[in-house]
Amino acid sequence: MLTVEEYQRRLLQAATRLPSENRPITEIGSLVGAVLDKDVRSAVPLPGFTNSAMDGYAVRAADVTTASADAPVRMTVSDDIPAGDTRQLTLRPGECARIMTGAPLPDGADAVVPVEITDGGLEIVTISEAVTAGSSVRHRGEDVQPGDTVIPAGTLLLPRHVPVLASAGLTEVAVVRRPRVAVVSTGDELLPLGERPGHGQIVDSNGPMLAALVAQGGFELAAVTRCGDTGEAVRAALTPLADSADAIITTGGVSAGAFEPLKLAFEGSGSFDFVKLTMQPGKPQGFGIIGGTPVFALPGNPVSSLVSFLVFVAPALRAMAGRSPEIARHRATVGEQWQSPPGRTQFARVVYADNGHVVRPIGGQGSHVMGGLAGCQALAIVPADVTSLSVGDEVEVISLEGLA
Amino acid sequence: MLTVEEYQRRLLQAATRLPSENRPITEIGSLVGAVLDKDVRSAVPLPGFTNSAMDGYAVRAADVTTASADAPVRMTVSDDIPAGDTRQLTLRPGECARIMTGAPLPDGADAVVPVEITDGGLEIVTISEAVTAGSSVRHRGEDVQPGDTVIPAGTLLLPRHVPVLASAGLTEVAVVRRPRVAVVSTGDELLPLGERPGHGQIVDSNGPMLAALVAQGGFELAAVTRCGDTGEAVRAALTPLADSADAIITTGGVSAGAFEPLKLAFEGSGSFDFVKLTMQPGKPQGFGIIGGTPVFALPGNPVSSLVSFLVFVAPALRAMAGRSPEIARHRATVGEQWQSPPGRTQFARVVYADNGHVVRPIGGQGSHVMGGLAGCQALAIVPADVTSLSVGDEVEVISLEGLA
Repeated sequence: MLTVEEYQRRLLQAATRLPSENRPITEIGSLVGAVLDKDVRSAVPLPGFTNSAMDGYAVRAADVTTASADAPVRMTVSDDIPAGDTRQLTLRPGECARIMTGAPLPDGADAVVPVEITDGGLEIVTISEAVTAGSSVRHRGEDVQPGDTVIPAGTLLLPRHVPVLASAGLTEVAVVRRPRVAVVSTGDELLPLGERPGHGQIVDSNGPMLAALVAQGGFELAAVTRCGDTGEAVRAALTPLADSADAIITTGGVSAGAFEPLKLAFEGSGSFDFVKLTMQPGKPQGFGIIGGTPVFALPGNPVSSLVSFLVFVAPALRAMAGRSPEIARHRATVGEQWQSPPGRTQFARVVYADNGHVVRPIGGQGSHVMGGLAGCQALAIVPADVTSLSVGDEVEVISLEGLA
Repeated sequence: MLTVEEYQRRLLQAATRLPSENRPITEIGSLVGAVLDKDVRSAVPLPGFTNSAMDGYAVRAADVTTASADAPVRMTVSDDIPAGDTRQLTLRPGECARIMTGAPLPDGADAVVPVEITDGGLEIVTISEAVTAGSSVRHRGEDVQPGDTVIPAGTLLLPRHVPVLASAGLTEVAVVRRPRVAVVSTGDELLPLGERPGHGQIVDSNGPMLAALVAQGGFELAAVTRCGDTGEAVRAALTPLADSADAIITTGGVSAGAFEPLKLAFEGSGSFDFVKLTMQPGKPQGFGIIGGTPVFALPGNPVSSLVSFLVFVAPALRAMAGRSPEIARHRATVGEQWQSPPGRTQFARVVYADNGHVVRPIGGQGSHVMGGLAGCQALAIVPADVTSLSVGDEVEVISLEGLA
C-alpha cells in the first residue's frame, strides 16, 4: 500500500513538461491559460510615440508660464489632433493644438493643458493656469523599452497579460503546449449519453464528467470514448490514442475482480503499475506509459474517479503544462462530526456553510452515490491518522465550486 | 457623481436574466457553467437495476448462514455475470454465480459474497464467512427514485453534476441562456492584433483583453471588433450587434474630450447615460440600451477597462446568466503603505506575498501603464473614506490569478 503523497510523487516524476510551441499573436485567446516558455521581450517601445495623457491643448510650456486665473494666456489653436492622427506635425511657437487623449504630441510641444483649465476655444483658447514641461505627456518608451522583459518565462498567461502581449510588437509567443487528454471509460455495460439503458446497462457518466474536468482545468480534449471489458478491447482503444494524445485517462478495470480489463491488458507488461493506496475513496489505481504517453487508470465509480482526477491527474496535467502542480486548498472548520477509516487518507464529500468557513459531511460516503456527488461542494482531506472529526476541528478542503 | 455601489445597482436593475433554453443531454459539456432553469428530476431509478457492489459471488444469503473459516460452505458456480451482462438470470437454490461490480444481480440472489472471503473457485467455490441478506447489493432506486429532484433549479452546473445529469434518463436540460457578448473598441488609432502601428497608431489591446475576460467568466463571445471615432461609426457598429448579441461592451469615447464617439453617438438620445463615478480608475462610464440590448461603455485605457469589467460588467453578465452577481473577494493584510485619493473608491493594483495573505502595491497606479497591469495579481478595494493604507491594515481584494 502506498500513501497518497508517495503516489503523487511517483506520477509527478513521470509527468514531464511538454515541449514549447509558437502560437501566433493573432490567436491571443488561445494563449490565455498557457504557460510562457520564454521571457516575452517587447520589440517596440511603449508607448510607441509621445502622446497626450489628457484631452486638452498641446503647448510649449514656456508659452504658458505666466497663465493664471487673473491673467489668462490666449493662444491661437493651429490644429486639431484626434487619436489616430498619423500626421507628423510640428507646433509653431506661440501656437497650440487641440489634442485628444492618446493622440500624438506634435514636435515642439512639451506639455498638455487639460481642457478643464481652459475655455475650450476652437480657434483661440484662453488658458487660465500654467503647466510645467512634461505635464500630461506620456513619453515614447516611458512604460517599456525595446528588449525589456514584459512577462517572465513560466508565467501562466491571464487576461491581464493580454494588453502588453498585444502591444509588444510580436508575431508569435512561445508557450508550453497544453496537454491534449483522451478519456476512455471501460465497461461492456456502458452506453453513450442520451441512450436508454436496458437491463444490466448504464449510461457512461465518468467519461463526460472527466471531459468536463479536463476542460475546466484548462487542458484540451483529444477524445472521449468507451471500450469493452477485454484486454484486447482496451489495447485496441488505447494504442491509437497514445499517438494523438499527450495523456490518457481511463476509468474502471483496476480493482480485484476477475474481469479487470486494464489489468488484463497491461498487468505484467512492465509498462504498467497497479497499486493500492491508503486512501478512501480511490484505493485501487493504475499508472502506465504506452508509446511514451502517460496513462492514468482510475477506478470506475464516479466519486472515486472525481477524487482521483483532482488528487492525482490534475497535478500531473498541470506539471505537463508547465504550471505549479498544486491544486488550491483552503482551511475550514468542521460543523458536524463524521468518522474516517483508520490508516486511510479520506477525501470526504462536504457542503459549505458560513460562506465557506464551515463544512459538514453530506450523504453517504459510499463511492457510488451520484446524488451525493452532485450535492457536494468540496472535499475535506482527513489525514490517515485521524479517525474522527469533531465540531470545531480544522480541516483542509478542496473546493468543487469554482468554474475552473 | 455616483458611488460604485449606486452604479452597480443601476446596472443590475437593467441586466435581467436571459430566457431559458433546452440543451440536448448529448451536449453535456456545454451545460457545465450554465445555470439550471428548472429542477432536474430523474426519469429513471438509480441504480437502474439491482446490482453487485463488489466482485464476488451472488448467493441466497440463507444458503451461506453457516459458513465460517472452520466450516466453509462449498457451492456450485452456475454462471459468470460480468458488468454489462444483459441476460435476465435466475439463481437456482443452492447455487451461486460469479459476479462483477456493477453487474445485475440474478433473480433469487439477495447478497454478494466478496471474492476476498472465498477461494475464488470457478466451478466450485468455497465460502469461509457468512453474509446477510442485502450485503454488497445496490438495490434498484436506492440512490434516486423516478421523479426525485436530483439538482435544484438555480444551480450552476459543474463537473460534479455531470454523472447524475448523464444518468437521469433525460434527453434535454433547461438552462438559462449564457449571454453572448460583443466587444467593440472605439478609436481611429486602433489596429488589429499582429499589425505594425505607424505614427499615432496602436494595436487594440482592450478588445482581446475583454474577449479573454468574457471567456474566462463563462460567457460566450458574439464578436470582437473595432470602430472609428465618429458617432456614425459607433452607431453603424453597434446597431447590428444589438440584434446578434445579448450584451455589448465598448471601450473608449466616454470621457470629457471633444471627440468622444460614444457620447457623439448616444448622448441626449434618452437611451444612454454617461456618468462620473467616485472611483479610481474608472471614473467615466456609460450605459445604455440599444434595441433592447444593454451596452456597457467603458473608459478606453486598459487598466480602467479591466477594473470596469470586473466591478460592473461581470456582475451584470452573471445576473443575466442566472448566477449570483457577486464576484469573489477575500481579505488580505497590507504589506506596504500606499495612498488613495480622498472621496474615491480605489481599485489598487497589488501583488501577493505570503501565499495571498499579504498584498503590496505595484508600479504606478496611473491607468495607462501596461507593464504594471500585466504584473498585478489582484485589485485591492480601498473605500472612498480611506486615503492611506498602512502596513497591517486589512483590505478586501479581488484576485486576478484564477483561470476563471
